[in-house]
Amino acid sequence: MTENEKKLKKLFSILNEVDAYERCLGKMQFDLECCAPEEGMEQAGEDMATIGKRVHALTHTKTYEKLVCELYENSEGLSEAQKKGIEHLYEDWKKEKNISAKLSYEMDCAFNKAYADWLKAKNTNDFSLYRDSFASAIKYNRMLVEVRDEQKKTVYDTLLDDYEKGGGIEQLNEFFGALKKRIVPLMKKIAKEGKPIRSDFMSRPVPIPQQEAFSRYLLELEGLRKTALVLMTTEHPFTDHYGPTDVRVTTHYYENNFISNIFSTLHEGGHALFMQNEPKELYDNHAADNMTSAMHECISRFYENIVGRSEEFIHFVMPKLKELSGGTFDDITERELYEAVNIAKPGLIRMEADELSYCIHIMVRYELEKAFVNGEITVDEIPALWNAKYKEYLGLDVPDDSRGCLQDVHWTGMFGYFPSYALGNAYGAQILNTMKKDFDVFGAIKEGRLNEIADWLTEKVFSIASLKTPDEWIKAITGESLNVDYYLNYLEEKFTKLYGLRGNK
Amino acid sequence: MTENEKKLKKLFSILNEVDAYERCLGKMQFDLECCAPEEGMEQAGEDMATIGKRVHALTHTKTYEKLVCELYENSEGLSEAQKKGIEHLYEDWKKEKNISAKLSYEMDCAFNKAYADWLKAKNTNDFSLYRDSFASAIKYNRMLVEVRDEQKKTVYDTLLDDYEKGGGIEQLNEFFGALKKRIVPLMKKIAKEGKPIRSDFMSRPVPIPQQEAFSRYLLELEGLRKTALVLMTTEHPFTDHYGPTDVRVTTHYYENNFISNIFSTLHEGGHALFMQNEPKELYDNHAADNMTSAMHECISRFYENIVGRSEEFIHFVMPKLKELSGGTFDDITERELYEAVNIAKPGLIRMEADELSYCIHIMVRYELEKAFVNGEITVDEIPALWNAKYKEYLGLDVPDDSRGCLQDVHWTGMFGYFPSYALGNAYGAQILNTMKKDFDVFGAIKEGRLNEIADWLTEKVFSIASLKTPDEWIKAITGESLNVDYYLNYLEEKFTKLYGLRGNK
Repeated sequence: MTENEKKLKKLFSILNEVDAYERCLGKMQFDLECCAPEEGMEQAGEDMATIGKRVHALTHTKTYEKLVCELYENSEGLSEAQKKGIEHLYEDWKKEKNISAKLSYEMDCAFNKAYADWLKAKNTNDFSLYRDSFASAIKYNRMLVEVRDEQKKTVYDTLLDDYEKGGGIEQLNEFFGALKKRIVPLMKKIAKEGKPIRSDFMSRPVPIPQQEAFSRYLLELEGLRKTALVLMTTEHPFTDHYGPTDVRVTTHYYENNFISNIFSTLHEGGHALFMQNEPKELYDNHAADNMTSAMHECISRFYENIVGRSEEFIHFVMPKLKELSGGTFDDITERELYEAVNIAKPGLIRMEADELSYCIHIMVRYELEKAFVNGEITVDEIPALWNAKYKEYLGLDVPDDSRGCLQDVHWTGMFGYFPSYALGNAYGAQILNTMKKDFDVFGAIKEGRLNEIADWLTEKVFSIASLKTPDEWIKAITGESLNVDYYLNYLEEKFTKLYGLRGNK
Repeated sequence: MTENEKKLKKLFSILNEVDAYERCLGKMQFDLECCAPEEGMEQAGEDMATIGKRVHALTHTKTYEKLVCELYENSEGLSEAQKKGIEHLYEDWKKEKNISAKLSYEMDCAFNKAYADWLKAKNTNDFSLYRDSFASAIKYNRMLVEVRDEQKKTVYDTLLDDYEKGGGIEQLNEFFGALKKRIVPLMKKIAKEGKPIRSDFMSRPVPIPQQEAFSRYLLELEGLRKTALVLMTTEHPFTDHYGPTDVRVTTHYYENNFISNIFSTLHEGGHALFMQNEPKELYDNHAADNMTSAMHECISRFYENIVGRSEEFIHFVMPKLKELSGGTFDDITERELYEAVNIAKPGLIRMEADELSYCIHIMVRYELEKAFVNGEITVDEIPALWNAKYKEYLGLDVPDDSRGCLQDVHWTGMFGYFPSYALGNAYGAQILNTMKKDFDVFGAIKEGRLNEIADWLTEKVFSIASLKTPDEWIKAITGESLNVDYYLNYLEEKFTKLYGLRGNK
């Protein structure tokens, strides 16, 4: 055994223990969101902080530091996966090395409390119940950054870079600027000239057991392994996993809005597919799961929109949908359903947004995050500013905070995550463009051969995501850096046709 | 602060951490049984063993030993709850002090694997899939006993004493002997002379959402706090809790057997009631949750049978049942339902057994456990011996192991637990006898005032359970030691009347 092999073995034995605690923490979080009763949440939060202490202890020893730094500085004999895994560990270590056990525990408690308080505030539509925890979530996010040896231009720049390496305010200002420039006129044109689209049938009730059966059908269609999959319900749908053998998709059923569940399931199923299909070699070398959140959202939004909201997909699933809903939609044509699920009409809720206005929802959050993380506005100003931006960009009056700034879970601590959705959309359209060169994507969708898409993604996209920076990754897949034009062209083409607009602009 | 106060504080700070890990382990187990996908089970088992290592480490230090032993030897200034809490900790320490970290980890892995293998074996009706894990579960149970400094007469005697302090083979032989002597003739008399009871309507389908709504209604009726309660489904119903603020009841719905879920829910709800209602002072002093499993089963079986299978209870819930099942039982009278839920007819499944034959199911398990734990029979002999006993005692041919020796989860490691159910039945009838002196129990049930029962139990039964040995406990409640006649009189009276038998014997 070489010196480096010995070091790696020693490091991996620590990481095996860390991973066990992390999986356990993940399941506790899952439990909190899907199972735990109201009264049990506070205790659960404290217990998670206790487990978190242990993770902190294991990754803040001299031994750990030495192993990670030495293997980073001299990676002789390591495989590519091992090298990249060590690189990530080294970067994480640098970010976290100055976080004391006390601060780490305090933060865990604060974030867990923030989640519980947010839930209460959202459910009772009372921003004041979340206000203090919101402020504390921001404070701890700032501290997380400020204790580091190295700093970006602003705190929010650092958070953005954490989520999407290479990203920062400058890049995102440009990115959102480009989106705004072409999406807003298109939205206006639709409002003015778009043909009317029928949507009355969208609120016909579909019993929840039937919706659940349809969800399971969709997940299988996406290509997920059932034996490594769980489907459950929660307030705010998410997907998480504890290794590739245990992937959890959650959704939310509304009897009078079956569409909500369909696209939520397709979205979460996209995440799940990514989680089930990273190469085993990466897991074995503690190098898996290092993709960015934008890479992940790229896949989930790909399945939700590019696949799910396509005419070909609606064609394929229509018989199953008619069958499971027991005749409820027998009078509706494929075309009618296709148009209805693509209605471009600004709404209050991001999760329910159409493909066109979606990025505008993200832009509102981006602009607010940037301001409150960097201390330019206070927590108390958020609700009113939120409402003003919804008025300005989407022309909507926000009736309450539950449908306003309290609607998403992300601001219980994940500041800098939201842009990932918009970036993911853009990556997705660019990847589609490349995929179409390899095979007839929509032909496959029309016949339900979604496995061809999953196989392509597994080979070209999932296999390298944890090994590359976002820019390296998209270049390796498509041959060029992120180019937002693919996404904007896709949107313009789709909605011009859908709404029968004149011209292509 | 006195010396003892200082020691207690130090000990409690260790116990707080232990409790956090224990709650976490409990939730991982809950996750395993209610959420986790098949492929994820092995990893989950290993992760739980990793957490278990930590619990072992925290409770196997010189400091821990010193604190527990010194406080046990000199409890000056400690409250009653604190003294009893320390007593339990001391006893547990004595039992576990010779278990090495290695053995503890090995055992955790073995028991977790046993659970997964049992599930596979049961689901595929293939005993061979569980055979090795069964043998290993027995082996580790024996080792658990053999490493102790002190031993009872046989290994199984020790396991029985662990579950029910003061219990052993001699006492249980006598106990089951008494049951057999009066129950078996009664069963035979019913088979020969009992009037026919109508049961055709029992398999009428009730949709699962309606069954679930009825379960929630029953749990509320029992007096459970909704905000500290979870209801979920699982293969093998159980109840667990992570402190009094997070109690989990699980059940299993069968569309064509709504009765199964009703009595399972009442049973588990009884456990849950106990868990929600131990005095806070006991929790604050790490002295809670030290009751025996027979004390627990006493309460669950009390709600399932004494309350749930009474004519008065059926009277009260009948309107709700008719309403929720949407007319399915409109033609059925209260009396017909009461008789049907009490049909005394031997069956293969313990969980579905009538009140009369139930203890015979337990007796089969007791006799087999005694033999295989003490090495008198091998694992391979169990299926055939099980089947022979079902033939002998209940006159039934067991068609397969899934409905035979694989039916219960307990033999994945909890050898010595089964007798608790039978003991619990006997405690319950004795407690009923005392309760009836204080108020009109069945009058209250008839009017749905189950809170009166819960209040009485909270005051007289739950409050002292963790502070007393089983014998001290039943004496404190009823004024005498366990007297199986109360139970046998109750059964004879109920079933003689129900089946219109002549005479009282």
